[in-house]
Amino acid sequence: MLAALAGGVGAARFLSGVLDVLSPADVVAVVNTGDDVVLHGLHVSPDLDTVLYTLAGAVNPDTGWGLAGESWTAMEALERYGGLTWFRLGDRDLATHLYRTQRLRDGISLSQVTAEVARAWGVEACLLPMSDDPVETRVDVVGEGEVGFQEYFVRRRHAVVASGVRFEGAERARPAPGVLEALATASTIVISPSNPILSIAPILAVPGIREAVTARRRDTVAVSPIVAGAALKGPADRLLTELGHEASVVGVARLYAPLAATLVVDEADAALAHDVEAAGMRCIVTGTVMHGRGEAASLAQTVLSA
Amino acid sequence: MLAALAGGVGAARFLSGVLDVLSPADVVAVVNTGDDVVLHGLHVSPDLDTVLYTLAGAVNPDTGWGLAGESWTAMEALERYGGLTWFRLGDRDLATHLYRTQRLRDGISLSQVTAEVARAWGVEACLLPMSDDPVETRVDVVGEGEVGFQEYFVRRRHAVVASGVRFEGAERARPAPGVLEALATASTIVISPSNPILSIAPILAVPGIREAVTARRRDTVAVSPIVAGAALKGPADRLLTELGHEASVVGVARLYAPLAATLVVDEADAALAHDVEAAGMRCIVTGTVMHGRGEAASLAQTVLSA
Repeated sequence: MLAALAGGVGAARFLSGVLDVLSPADVVAVVNTGDDVVLHGLHVSPDLDTVLYTLAGAVNPDTGWGLAGESWTAMEALERYGGLTWFRLGDRDLATHLYRTQRLRDGISLSQVTAEVARAWGVEACLLPMSDDPVETRVDVVGEGEVGFQEYFVRRRHAVVASGVRFEGAERARPAPGVLEALATASTIVISPSNPILSIAPILAVPGIREAVTARRRDTVAVSPIVAGAALKGPADRLLTELGHEASVVGVARLYAPLAATLVVDEADAALAHDVEAAGMRCIVTGTVMHGRGEAASLAQTVLSA
Repeated sequence: MLAALAGGVGAARFLSGVLDVLSPADVVAVVNTGDDVVLHGLHVSPDLDTVLYTLAGAVNPDTGWGLAGESWTAMEALERYGGLTWFRLGDRDLATHLYRTQRLRDGISLSQVTAEVARAWGVEACLLPMSDDPVETRVDVVGEGEVGFQEYFVRRRHAVVASGVRFEGAERARPAPGVLEALATASTIVISPSNPILSIAPILAVPGIREAVTARRRDTVAVSPIVAGAALKGPADRLLTELGHEASVVGVARLYAPLAATLVVDEADAALAHDVEAAGMRCIVTGTVMHGRGEAASLAQTVLSA
């Protein structure tokens, strides 16, 4: 059984590869909810939805998030009011948020509604939010002060300098039901190729999760989201630098060495394998850039063989 | 200046006629919010929106509510989840609920967001919710017990027998800012052709409003929503009977006599004019069925001349 710590697009692509190699009954994804946000009163869980839509084969292939063939009627109509349209919710995607919000109001947990939504899409892998309790990733922006994650990531298109990241509520959050069990019993734990600071760190900030991963360090494999010093998507490279880390596989290795015995890096970083090992991680070099499902499956196979 | 107590479709059509006769600056609508409902976490104000969309010239002419040329992508997508789709929210209409919900969360009042939304549509008449405080119309359904208004009206399509109606929260509600002032200063108060029990009674249940109308009884004109013993739309006729009233202009006169000096009835009810007067109201007979804007304007003119 494989348990993966997962953020958004990179993790979703990796997991779709995993499902070409493993039975969905053997896959548990522990998904970041630190960038969940309430918009218009609706509970939006961007990473859960990206993983869900990807595994359902319904994701927009151009963006890696949102639904393919989406329409934007509600957002266009919202412009009349000068409403909050910087975070664009497609018409079909809105249904997911409407349903999730209604079910949470009905009193069920985020894990439960996530299971319902996954079932509706025929996704058989187990998707777990990291926690059913609210955790809010907040970013210190130089010259502005602290803003919510989506304010940083979407509204400012992460084109500002960050000086810190904090996970509001994390210390009071409990891992969602099934999370610690999955981490304890998985034959392999994977830290997906997601932003270490914005996607993986909030999961690890939920008390008990970092400890559970650390306890399985030997069976834990991380996939570097940094390739040749750059993030394939998003601000991971710049953010690592801004927060005093090195934007390289070596910087990633220094972050993950206490948690994972192995780091999988791209062939572009083969020359740094020795430095990764010096940072305390075994280094596996392979193709990690997932343009399509074949590459994702091949990466998954390499990770499982690690 | 004209102040109208208003429910949904009938009131909206009447008010559109009023605006062919009066300047919008001289028209205040005090709109029922007893059938407001939170769906999927969104604050939906059906009567306010029906009046708004009608006065904006954007209403669906076939139904009398909702937007013309609407699409239903979000609702269709919600069916995948088995979500709450008995109350159908169109994609463009959703934007109104998204905006209203966000603004209420921002801390502004329902009156304020109503003014913003009206301005965005270029509606210059003053639309006021009856109250900024929550009032919830609840219906006792025989054999079921009490249900929310929309559960009765939309979900059961009012095809059940009611034994009572109650306005939860009304006793603690205050009239929205401007309501009592409009009723005190209007040259004419109109009780629109709306359901007396489900649309007008909740407005009158807000402490201060019934008294304000009663104090202006001589200048208050009601338009009967019952024509030839039947409601033009909705369950007003059956509901009047179920709750022990007479489903006729005479029954309406008995309800409104303490509040309004004059009742406008349709020509189909000319023979009952004497009985209306016996019930304590002056009776004006005219065409009250509004198929189009011309008829609405003509009815408005008659009401204003009363």
